[in-house]
Amino acid sequence: MNVTNDAKSTFQFLCEPFHCDFQNRLQWTVLGNHILNSAGVHAGQRGFGIRALNELQFTWVLSRLAIEMDAMPMQADGFRITTWIENVYRFFTDRNFVIADAKGMPIGYARSVWAMIDWTTRRPVDLLQYRQGHIASYICHDTVPIAKPGHIKVDSDRVADEHVVRYSDIDLNGHVNSIKYVEHVLDLFSPAHYAQHPLHRVEVAYVAESNYGDRLQLVCNEGEADRQDILIRKGQHTPVAQCRLVFHAPRG
Amino acid sequence: MNVTNDAKSTFQFLCEPFHCDFQNRLQWTVLGNHILNSAGVHAGQRGFGIRALNELQFTWVLSRLAIEMDAMPMQADGFRITTWIENVYRFFTDRNFVIADAKGMPIGYARSVWAMIDWTTRRPVDLLQYRQGHIASYICHDTVPIAKPGHIKVDSDRVADEHVVRYSDIDLNGHVNSIKYVEHVLDLFSPAHYAQHPLHRVEVAYVAESNYGDRLQLVCNEGEADRQDILIRKGQHTPVAQCRLVFHAPRG
Repeated sequence: MNVTNDAKSTFQFLCEPFHCDFQNRLQWTVLGNHILNSAGVHAGQRGFGIRALNELQFTWVLSRLAIEMDAMPMQADGFRITTWIENVYRFFTDRNFVIADAKGMPIGYARSVWAMIDWTTRRPVDLLQYRQGHIASYICHDTVPIAKPGHIKVDSDRVADEHVVRYSDIDLNGHVNSIKYVEHVLDLFSPAHYAQHPLHRVEVAYVAESNYGDRLQLVCNEGEADRQDILIRKGQHTPVAQCRLVFHAPRG
Repeated sequence: MNVTNDAKSTFQFLCEPFHCDFQNRLQWTVLGNHILNSAGVHAGQRGFGIRALNELQFTWVLSRLAIEMDAMPMQADGFRITTWIENVYRFFTDRNFVIADAKGMPIGYARSVWAMIDWTTRRPVDLLQYRQGHIASYICHDTVPIAKPGHIKVDSDRVADEHVVRYSDIDLNGHVNSIKYVEHVLDLFSPAHYAQHPLHRVEVAYVAESNYGDRLQLVCNEGEADRQDILIRKGQHTPVAQCRLVFHAPRG
């Protein structure tokens, strides 16, 4: 059962067998989509979900996302995602998430930044004007104890991988799904790497959309032991997303 | 809430925004994983799930899967998956699925065939001997009104695509996830193709496992308007899976 109060909604999940990675832990990409879907349902319950926006030819665009996990649910574990809006600015809104285990103990957090755009003009919508500031009535100033998404700068030109955008990359917006970029970035590393360096934090700054057939390049800075920054670009010149993976200290 | 009787379990789902394709319909791959997870949870509830098997160094291996949909849930639609075991043979079990809309009206069906193997010897386990035929006590002979998975023969040698197995392909068994093969096969076609030829049925015969780093080739027979057969092989000689996509008649 899901719990909803004025500002926050909590959604219950089960870590299902075929959503687990090779170590029997919840896949980061499955968690990422659960986080976005929780945001979508929370907004829908309050009248500012994608479907309500679509009637006005508006939509939400994810600008930044950071997910930081101290532990990942294991197969058959229950877990919960609680989400709320921390701030509403003119052109952006901050949305937070707590990921908790079945007993309600936090095991991770996420921060996100969203913009509303008018898809006919591609211009941002003033969130303080949208339905007389309707969204701001749901603000809860609770914060989460993880760093805000930071500035990621990749100055290398080393193309570590290429990916041509396919059918399975595309979501309801007609563009590459936000979490699919994470999947492609995670695929730069092997299961053996993750066994030695469990992932602690994923951070993405979404810069531009990409479309079916686009050729994406994944450009990597020289890796550090605990961190990898990656630029995803279209062709050689158009940045699409800046990503950072932060690993736990090596095991053993 | 989920309903369980002796033989059948029903699981409730919501078609969440970021599980939708470009037409706002549930993605086939998301449905496929829900189907496998429903099987996993149904088995787990009755003492023959992967975790119980793992204690004996056994596991389930999916041998065949066919999913046929008359309609796909749209964004925000509820839907249900009911699953049960129709037959238990010495080395195989047939498991069926009904996919129903929020009112309980069937919108699609699936059939699957599974084997239990001992992962130390890689040999099949006699299902009629396993815990004195425990599984057979849950048989329900209800069938589903779709064709059984048939024989798929690709005699072409036309390599339509290649895919090197990556981290995101690997699931809890350490091999490529069954539904990831479906994703790679669906990626042979464009969104424009699916807009014209909505997918009606997906069928896979799983022949061999593939592992991280394997180079998979997708070999296609000359396509027919309503059907495409695809062989997935490792290198040039080792078949991994035989797949068939069946499309609805073209629109317009």
